[in-house]
Amino acid sequence: MKIKDGDIIVFAGDSTTDADKNATGDGLGNGYVKLVRDALFAFRPSENFRVVNAGVSGNTTLHLLKRWEKDVSSLKPDIVFCMIGINDVWRHFDYLDPLDKRISEEEYAENIGKICDLAEGAREFCLMTPYYMERNRTDEMRVLTEKYAARMKEAAKDRGIKVIDLQKVFDEYMQGRPGQSVSWDRVHPGSVGSMLIAREVLREFER
Amino acid sequence: MKIKDGDIIVFAGDSTTDADKNATGDGLGNGYVKLVRDALFAFRPSENFRVVNAGVSGNTTLHLLKRWEKDVSSLKPDIVFCMIGINDVWRHFDYLDPLDKRISEEEYAENIGKICDLAEGAREFCLMTPYYMERNRTDEMRVLTEKYAARMKEAAKDRGIKVIDLQKVFDEYMQGRPGQSVSWDRVHPGSVGSMLIAREVLREFER
Amino acid sequence: MKIKDGDIIVFAGDSTTDADKNATGDGLGNGYVKLVRDALFAFRPSENFRVVNAGVSGNTTLHLLKRWEKDVSSLKPDIVFCMIGINDVWRHFDYLDPLDKRISEEEYAENIGKICDLAEGAREFCLMTPYYMERNRTDEMRVLTEKYAARMKEAAKDRGIKVIDLQKVFDEYMQGRPGQSVSWDRVHPGSVGSMLIAREVLREFER
Amino acid sequence: MKIKDGDIIVFAGDSTTDADKNATGDGLGNGYVKLVRDALFAFRPSENFRVVNAGVSGNTTLHLLKRWEKDVSSLKPDIVFCMIGINDVWRHFDYLDPLDKRISEEEYAENIGKICDLAEGAREFCLMTPYYMERNRTDEMRVLTEKYAARMKEAAKDRGIKVIDLQKVFDEYMQGRPGQSVSWDRVHPGSVGSMLIAREVLREFER
Amino acid sequence: MKIKDGDIIVFAGDSTTDADKNATGDGLGNGYVKLVRDALFAFRPSENFRVVNAGVSGNTTLHLLKRWEKDVSSLKPDIVFCMIGINDVWRHFDYLDPLDKRISEEEYAENIGKICDLAEGAREFCLMTPYYMERNRTDEMRVLTEKYAARMKEAAKDRGIKVIDLQKVFDEYMQGRPGQSVSWDRVHPGSVGSMLIAREVLREFER
Amino acid sequence: MKIKDGDIIVFAGDSTTDADKNATGDGLGNGYVKLVRDALFAFRPSENFRVVNAGVSGNTTLHLLKRWEKDVSSLKPDIVFCMIGINDVWRHFDYLDPLDKRISEEEYAENIGKICDLAEGAREFCLMTPYYMERNRTDEMRVLTEKYAARMKEAAKDRGIKVIDLQKVFDEYMQGRPGQSVSWDRVHPGSVGSMLIAREVLREFER
Amino acid sequence: MKIKDGDIIVFAGDSTTDADKNATGDGLGNGYVKLVRDALFAFRPSENFRVVNAGVSGNTTLHLLKRWEKDVSSLKPDIVFCMIGINDVWRHFDYLDPLDKRISEEEYAENIGKICDLAEGAREFCLMTPYYMERNRTDEMRVLTEKYAARMKEAAKDRGIKVIDLQKVFDEYMQGRPGQSVSWDRVHPGSVGSMLIAREVLREFER
Amino acid sequence: MKIKDGDIIVFAGDSTTDADKNATGDGLGNGYVKLVRDALFAFRPSENFRVVNAGVSGNTTLHLLKRWEKDVSSLKPDIVFCMIGINDVWRHFDYLDPLDKRISEEEYAENIGKICDLAEGAREFCLMTPYYMERNRTDEMRVLTEKYAARMKEAAKDRGIKVIDLQKVFDEYMQGRPGQSVSWDRVHPGSVGSMLIAREVLREFER
Repeated sequence: MKIKDGDIIVFAGDSTTDADKNATGDGLGNGYVKLVRDALFAFRPSENFRVVNAGVSGNTTLHLLKRWEKDVSSLKPDIVFCMIGINDVWRHFDYLDPLDKRISEEEYAENIGKICDLAEGAREFCLMTPYYMERNRTDEMRVLTEKYAARMKEAAKDRGIKVIDLQKVFDEYMQGRPGQSVSWDRVHPGSVGSMLIAREVLREFER
Repeated sequence: MKIKDGDIIVFAGDSTTDADKNATGDGLGNGYVKLVRDALFAFRPSENFRVVNAGVSGNTTLHLLKRWEKDVSSLKPDIVFCMIGINDVWRHFDYLDPLDKRISEEEYAENIGKICDLAEGAREFCLMTPYYMERNRTDEMRVLTEKYAARMKEAAKDRGIKVIDLQKVFDEYMQGRPGQSVSWDRVHPGSVGSMLIAREVLREFER
Repeated sequence: MKIKDGDIIVFAGDSTTDADKNATGDGLGNGYVKLVRDALFAFRPSENFRVVNAGVSGNTTLHLLKRWEKDVSSLKPDIVFCMIGINDVWRHFDYLDPLDKRISEEEYAENIGKICDLAEGAREFCLMTPYYMERNRTDEMRVLTEKYAARMKEAAKDRGIKVIDLQKVFDEYMQGRPGQSVSWDRVHPGSVGSMLIAREVLREFER
Repeated sequence: MKIKDGDIIVFAGDSTTDADKNATGDGLGNGYVKLVRDALFAFRPSENFRVVNAGVSGNTTLHLLKRWEKDVSSLKPDIVFCMIGINDVWRHFDYLDPLDKRISEEEYAENIGKICDLAEGAREFCLMTPYYMERNRTDEMRVLTEKYAARMKEAAKDRGIKVIDLQKVFDEYMQGRPGQSVSWDRVHPGSVGSMLIAREVLREFER
Repeated sequence: MKIKDGDIIVFAGDSTTDADKNATGDGLGNGYVKLVRDALFAFRPSENFRVVNAGVSGNTTLHLLKRWEKDVSSLKPDIVFCMIGINDVWRHFDYLDPLDKRISEEEYAENIGKICDLAEGAREFCLMTPYYMERNRTDEMRVLTEKYAARMKEAAKDRGIKVIDLQKVFDEYMQGRPGQSVSWDRVHPGSVGSMLIAREVLREFER
Repeated sequence: MKIKDGDIIVFAGDSTTDADKNATGDGLGNGYVKLVRDALFAFRPSENFRVVNAGVSGNTTLHLLKRWEKDVSSLKPDIVFCMIGINDVWRHFDYLDPLDKRISEEEYAENIGKICDLAEGAREFCLMTPYYMERNRTDEMRVLTEKYAARMKEAAKDRGIKVIDLQKVFDEYMQGRPGQSVSWDRVHPGSVGSMLIAREVLREFER
Repeated sequence: MKIKDGDIIVFAGDSTTDADKNATGDGLGNGYVKLVRDALFAFRPSENFRVVNAGVSGNTTLHLLKRWEKDVSSLKPDIVFCMIGINDVWRHFDYLDPLDKRISEEEYAENIGKICDLAEGAREFCLMTPYYMERNRTDEMRVLTEKYAARMKEAAKDRGIKVIDLQKVFDEYMQGRPGQSVSWDRVHPGSVGSMLIAREVLREFER
Repeated sequence: MKIKDGDIIVFAGDSTTDADKNATGDGLGNGYVKLVRDALFAFRPSENFRVVNAGVSGNTTLHLLKRWEKDVSSLKPDIVFCMIGINDVWRHFDYLDPLDKRISEEEYAENIGKICDLAEGAREFCLMTPYYMERNRTDEMRVLTEKYAARMKEAAKDRGIKVIDLQKVFDEYMQGRPGQSVSWDRVHPGSVGSMLIAREVLREFER
């Protein structure tokens, strides 16, 4: 992916991206987006970038689709990263409000497709798969997460869009240490998991 | 178990028992201990009990042993419940500080034995096994938790002490719903899990 | 009363139902509604329910009537519980603002009737009588509360609607212990009184 | 009672006297003690008094006895008022902790006697009876309160000590309005009840 | 002045009346209005009154005139008390903003006249003079305050309206103690001065 | 007075000096001491000074004497300013606690003498008279303040110590505007009065 | 510059003028504007002035132009001071957001011209140059600041408008002490630098 | 430098190391120490380390020497990093309290020597030079900082101790962007500067 001086870079997603962004003065949160921005500023001092955190906690693909125009497209970004889907999966495992509608694999695939269409205006677009920080491959939520991630990869492949496979990144990490050691719920990455994600984004800039 | 008018009832344990007891005016926390006390007061209005929360967050058997005299024995309780062990297990899976010593199965068994000895002064004593709210029986932390729980049950059996098998209680619950739906980390039971534990304690009073 | 997987259950009422619901993150308050919800979630894990607290502190039947459409009907509930009336009674005993109008027994009966009409859309509807936690049957506020409760029971009988007689529940309790031991003002039930109310609601689900 | 320029006046008692004195900058609380002091300052501008609030919430005669030397005698007061006893009564009606000892009528009478002995150093000493703001004379807590008040009056009579009969004051008030209209628990007097008590104290200064 | 069961009583004025009313839950402030209300409730328990604090800090007659309709008349009061004028005086002595217009004696007299006209709807109306708690009769602000008070008395006399001469009340007080002992700025009365004002209002009810 | 590079300058006094020094991070308060220090730093940039605020609110000469060793002498100051006495005067006019002892003119003169003795170690020592910001020369507190100030001037004259006559400074100011326009209680100088005091101190440095 | 009794004096500018004005009750901030106002009040007690702080943190000439009508002209000031430009310079050295436009020297000169035109209604108008508190004349931000200041001086000269050369003031100061000793960022003047600026403004009043 | 599983790693220094460590729950602060720790945890998941922040804001070499035993040696660290000296330099440029003693180049060199001696117990020891984020090489504080850094490098060379030359790191950075863009005072590195420091530390682990 090419990154150029003056680029506007938007990260769209859920709480992993959001990382409490409304509580930090700069609107960047304290997760991987902040690390990516700081690294760009620290290691490319002769260039200028605008980095925008467009993550919102609790978002599914459905929520993200609805706010894409306002939160992403309207900024006319040069580069867009999008990590979405873990809440589409999670709602099958936690509180099952009779009034809520769960997003099926098919709907997820469809929503990802629509997001790809909406992102066409950006010079560079990159998806990041949902992941589950549990190394037991028979874990029921991991199994479902992998199915959704597969759908994302399919959708990306069809359209020639880049995908960062974060499950793979964390699987490598979990060879050394259980996922719950950095993430009690196996989803929110904390400062350590954020560093793993940030590294992937930064590597993408150099591919 | 016989419960009598005027009994002093102490619940010893870790954060599941503690349930933020220092933040509630009555020192009872907002977990199962509070529910048990309220039920005793609501449903046995002609009797009087003193219910004491002696749980401390983060405790292993080692911590509990050290404070048993001060926090339990010195109250001269008639009835003692003790749920301890999940932190003995957990320290094998989360942050592994080089300066900390992990408590092995053998040490756990030994510590439980010492606790049983210390509890001899009470008229009634009941152990409650550690549990892990994950229904995948191959989960690595569940596997270890079950080993420790087995040690507790052995120790209890040898001495003729009652044990409530909480893993069994939650396994039954998890036939309907994944453990993470009420407990993100599969350990802290929240208000729903506390109700399940409280019911077991109340049933014990009626056995 | 039949309760089914997927049911939306609304509890309408005054401060006894409200139980500080705006101060708890889940909008359920810390009274009987929370206990009922937790019990449903704990003991029926294979079903899903939506439980709504529609109590507002200080409400009389007049206030409740005015907000029924917005706070109850608009949710299309399957099951509705309604406990209302103690404030209709209380305003005869505390501050008597010349600008306020007191609700007479007749008006109360009329208002209850209207509430019953409005609740017709629900599959199940159950009234709960106002109560006064004072065991002296000559107490002036108890005497008036019982008159209003009688009106509610009449209205319910005429229409074949279920009624839980909470005064009876608390009378049984007060055989063992004075009402003021759990409720300084004999009205707000605290955590112990809430457990008594919650048990009645849960029993109703099993009748 | 004679009050003189330069007098140190101490009010000993429980929460009715205390009235949240630690939360007000002047240590006088917001109850009858504050009203008495303000009235003395407003209506006797050419004299100077030191008024001390020596009430402590929750105190029974037993607690007050233990701290009399430190909180009352050590100030070398010229005038002492003492209102104590409602907590001695109350502990028979609210939470009955098996570890607590209830103070019987006999013990109460004995404690009042000891307080009278300790107060001998003051030039003027005046007792004020406990009261219960419930006009139903068959109310169980009122009945007991009256027994304790009778004991206080006896003790005072034997020693020729002044007594203000606050129950009588509130009974007169309750001819017009129920006690609970100014005091939800029938004990804590609020700003209106405090004015009634303050008037009695001020009248005593003019007898 | 006749006061009757059910009367609505409004106190209009400046900061002396206001007494931080927005900071007290009941909107009564902590000055003389609160004392008057509490005394009415304490000493006339068989009657009901609505007492309204319509004081606003910093008000001159000009400000009060502008809000009279909204804050006083619209409440349809039976009885109105009005103490206003010290800010009309004060602005001649403290910060003299070039953009502010000072209210002359003549304008003050005129404004008081208009207030009297607006107050005609009330069954009872009583003015209270501005006062200055300084016993040196040559004090420049006292001299001016007395001139304004004289204007108020004239206006009242012409219309047969009652006036409470508060300067006289405080002069009597200051025979024993300097005004600054209860009021650093000689204007805000504190709790002691408020008691003096409240007594005058209560005496008016009994004339 | 000579001021030299490296001088330690201490200002001893009461609340006028203190100016809420514990609430400002630099311990200088927000009164004349801060202004003096800032002026020294701004207008003599090639020199370095240490400026210490040793004022304590409510202090009389008696309090100051007791803490002189700890708060002044122990700092080994080169220059000492001392403004003290208004509280010695004030206690004759405000709250007259029977337990407090008022400081007479004679005692004041004696205390000032002792302070002068204690200050002998400093290279430069300067007294500042108490003042009262009331231009009516018959004002009772002004009359007394002038008597105490005269005592201070006498004591200084006897010992050849410099005195700044602040009453004179404020009298000049009050030719244009009443004292209460900058100081409600005629004592605490606010930011405007502090500027007048600071100018006198700075002028002293240049004499 | 002539200053007259009754003048309205407005200070327009950026954060140096603003000085946290929204956090101080009087809207004057804690910088040079407050010092100027206090000095006027302290040293000219027989005159009255209205002093207005119209500084807003972060403002460039572009921002100030946009709000001049609302924040300056609408007040109909007699005297206007304007210090603006350091943010026009600074944006070339700190965060370079691709979406922001930097203000060139030419635009700055043009904006200053427009401000001069807008200020024509005032009787007196005075510009104050931006400055940089760094005594190394080769410092890159100082070099640019001087260029912008030169533009301001040119614009003022063309129109016969007064200019206070603050860089010169601080250069003199920095002969004795480095600029960073009072201003970490060499821009925000703190209390010491504010005193230097205030002195210049006050001197201007006396020219 | 060799880093091994189980190592205890201590970072000693001033505010750049401290980074508000007392305000973060984990005691690591939000500067380079936190980034180093997170990177170690993220990228070496099969090893365990204990990382300790032993920085204290405002420390000079003198302060650090005094607490070395307590804060560093007593932890028996395997690896120690030490960045110290900027405050030794800074005290020559900011507030020059006559009571403070400035640390000369010679004393600095001597102190660094002593620190090296104290650090001998650690398996690995690495110094990091003080730096000044100003690219103008004639800047007076930069010139002095470089002198102190040279002393550190000399001391290290004599003893064969590793040194990270942070000035060089920031010089490279400042080719692209002025130092003040990330650090207003050219010293505190913020999140961007911390990333540059952290990278150097991490590289050291891999040399």
